[in-house]
Amino acid sequence: MVPHLITALTGPINELEQRVLESVPAIERWFRLEWMEHTPPFYSAVDLRNAGFKLAPVDTNLFPAGFNNLTPEMLPLAVQAAMAAIEKICPEAKNLLLIPEARVRNPFYLASVQRLVEVFNQAGLNVRLGTLDDSVTAPTTLALPDGGELVVEPLLRQRGRLGLKDFDPCTILLNDDLSAGTPEVLQELHQQYLLPPLHAGWAVRRKSRHFTSYEEVAKKFAKLLGMDPWLINPMHGQCGPVDFDTPSGLECVQTHTETMLTKVRRKYKEYGINEKPFVVVKADNGTHGMGIMTVRDAKELDGLNERARSRMSWVTHNKQEGQRISEVIIQEGVPTYERINDAVAEPVVYMIDRYVVGGFYRIHADRGIDENLNAPGSAFVPLAFAENHQLPKRGAKPGASAPNRFYMYGVIGRLAMLAASYELEATDPEAEVYD
Amino acid sequence: MVPHLITALTGPINELEQRVLESVPAIERWFRLEWMEHTPPFYSAVDLRNAGFKLAPVDTNLFPAGFNNLTPEMLPLAVQAAMAAIEKICPEAKNLLLIPEARVRNPFYLASVQRLVEVFNQAGLNVRLGTLDDSVTAPTTLALPDGGELVVEPLLRQRGRLGLKDFDPCTILLNDDLSAGTPEVLQELHQQYLLPPLHAGWAVRRKSRHFTSYEEVAKKFAKLLGMDPWLINPMHGQCGPVDFDTPSGLECVQTHTETMLTKVRRKYKEYGINEKPFVVVKADNGTHGMGIMTVRDAKELDGLNERARSRMSWVTHNKQEGQRISEVIIQEGVPTYERINDAVAEPVVYMIDRYVVGGFYRIHADRGIDENLNAPGSAFVPLAFAENHQLPKRGAKPGASAPNRFYMYGVIGRLAMLAASYELEATDPEAEVYD
Repeated sequence: MVPHLITALTGPINELEQRVLESVPAIERWFRLEWMEHTPPFYSAVDLRNAGFKLAPVDTNLFPAGFNNLTPEMLPLAVQAAMAAIEKICPEAKNLLLIPEARVRNPFYLASVQRLVEVFNQAGLNVRLGTLDDSVTAPTTLALPDGGELVVEPLLRQRGRLGLKDFDPCTILLNDDLSAGTPEVLQELHQQYLLPPLHAGWAVRRKSRHFTSYEEVAKKFAKLLGMDPWLINPMHGQCGPVDFDTPSGLECVQTHTETMLTKVRRKYKEYGINEKPFVVVKADNGTHGMGIMTVRDAKELDGLNERARSRMSWVTHNKQEGQRISEVIIQEGVPTYERINDAVAEPVVYMIDRYVVGGFYRIHADRGIDENLNAPGSAFVPLAFAENHQLPKRGAKPGASAPNRFYMYGVIGRLAMLAASYELEATDPEAEVYD
Repeated sequence: MVPHLITALTGPINELEQRVLESVPAIERWFRLEWMEHTPPFYSAVDLRNAGFKLAPVDTNLFPAGFNNLTPEMLPLAVQAAMAAIEKICPEAKNLLLIPEARVRNPFYLASVQRLVEVFNQAGLNVRLGTLDDSVTAPTTLALPDGGELVVEPLLRQRGRLGLKDFDPCTILLNDDLSAGTPEVLQELHQQYLLPPLHAGWAVRRKSRHFTSYEEVAKKFAKLLGMDPWLINPMHGQCGPVDFDTPSGLECVQTHTETMLTKVRRKYKEYGINEKPFVVVKADNGTHGMGIMTVRDAKELDGLNERARSRMSWVTHNKQEGQRISEVIIQEGVPTYERINDAVAEPVVYMIDRYVVGGFYRIHADRGIDENLNAPGSAFVPLAFAENHQLPKRGAKPGASAPNRFYMYGVIGRLAMLAASYELEATDPEAEVYD
């Protein structure tokens, strides 16, 4: 199920899109069967790049912010999905402890937290906010852009349970991606549900592991639809410790870049695509938007100037308790051909449990179609529900109904979410005990 | 969870509404706990009457048509709910057999069936239509108002299973209310899921049984909110065989009417309501809209003229294979003070599984606030999603957010649905075996 949101796409429906739209019942059943075997992440947001000839996820966020960028009409969908999620976890729950990102007091981020609070209130839970920030020792009021406020409270750890003063939750929902490491206060919580689990945090997670799972999912899905998985899968390679400050440190990255560019060139030739291939080099762990580099030729890495080096190692020096960029993923670059006005745009799909609950475009006026848009200067355009839309109907006169072009984004978003589910199963430290 | 739809209400929020809006998390949790013990009907539609001082369901339809009257934006909610419903019943299902009302070829009804087909397609099912109409012996194409078409096919019964030619469904979804009796072809289907079950059809169901269950639900809910259950419960009485053609046949109805009017008068006095009480007399079984009479004084029943008598017994003579009005429910009349333009309006809330998926206003320009609106001449106004709405927020500045006034309708609609669930448990012929 995917809501019908208005996309910026205007061209004719291409082959991939056509095939997806024709196969709705088969696709939805396929997902249903997958969810019988696998548990969806509690929530997720997937960045997509639509090149027309290819549509692929480039980042899967398991601690999504940005709920404030979704159109308010999506709230009922989010609430319905949240109810489904909670019924599976703690059906009798009264209380939910939400842990937002430590130390982030950006008003937009707080507006996203506020939206989550609303969703879970409407789903029948008392929500209170606990902070990982040790400097908060008493309930603290934070002002919201709309004039409202949020109160964050110090966490209270008592043996096996985590809560707040006079607040003992059944479920703890984490909205901090743990790139600063896994705080002790969250460890060994065996009596409560901590979601997402700790190994979904960037202290443990690796993008390359995710995209290996995604490749597996993409192959299965492509088989169902009888198509080349490359049309939805961004190829990737991975390098161990990389030191951007020494020339020899980049050797692995250069080799992978060369190999990748050759592979992409071959694919472009196969499909008659007249584009210049590129790869994206980014930290294998850590939040997106930091240390991302577009490379069109492996030689570019030779002459990496000081600015580029420092940009890539920015994560190391400036982020409190941050980790060094030690591992790197080299990913096939997928250009995005969606534009809003003149700005390059990429869709972001939001999901709660197994359901798509909305989306928006991330746009950046100063970036090219082969560059990372998740950077300072980006803006967000909520995708509105299509008005008076008709879903594609079998038996309807041609042209009588506008196709739901957002549907395909919802499918690819869910494939990435399913990959995250495979990934978390594979990296679950508890599961290893029984293997 | 209830979507925020625009209601026609404009006055200040009254006490009942205020209490409901303040108690969202508690209410939603209460429903969650109820659904742990009880199974919601597959789908339902509830007619409500809002008198301001009182809000009550007056009819609960377990085979709803009218899905075409919902705003198209509600489709994703309906699909999400349908997916949740199907996962519980037949998670591996590929096929769904939908049985629409036999012999009804009204284009509006067909548009509703088409909408259901879309919903289940999007939920991942191949849907085909089977008809209870024996005169259909080959696949038959029916034209839709929008130029599309539907194909109905003859049912194929093979021992314990029901299907179509080359179509063996896991679930059979019935959209015929069985007021003409329970067809043999639907009986003894023990290998498939037939939903709603046969005892939800009007051949078995009684309105008085439903409202007895509703009273139980309303009492529980009122206890949760610390309020008088009467504020949401329409009182009712019931009479066995009633013959409208003889004066003595009406004695039971008269006695109940008098008792009911006295009770309502007492309640009105308690709450300082300056209204003239009335009761509604209707068939205890059978589809709504037929044989419904507003009575303001028990003496009116003495002088029942030929027209009124024939209107009440219309069901008997004109409906093919119809049943005699043998049993009657006498219900407290609830005036409806909602108006759209100048027409009297009553909200109708649609649900799939445990979720509210939309609603509309039934309006009737020629009827009074104390009359049945479900009659020839009525029209439908889809409730749109509120634009740029904000859900009521705790901690927000007063006036900063518009309250979701549709929420209360969604709550009362779900209370009636829960009552239907109690009712179907109590009347389940299979359950009796174990009692």
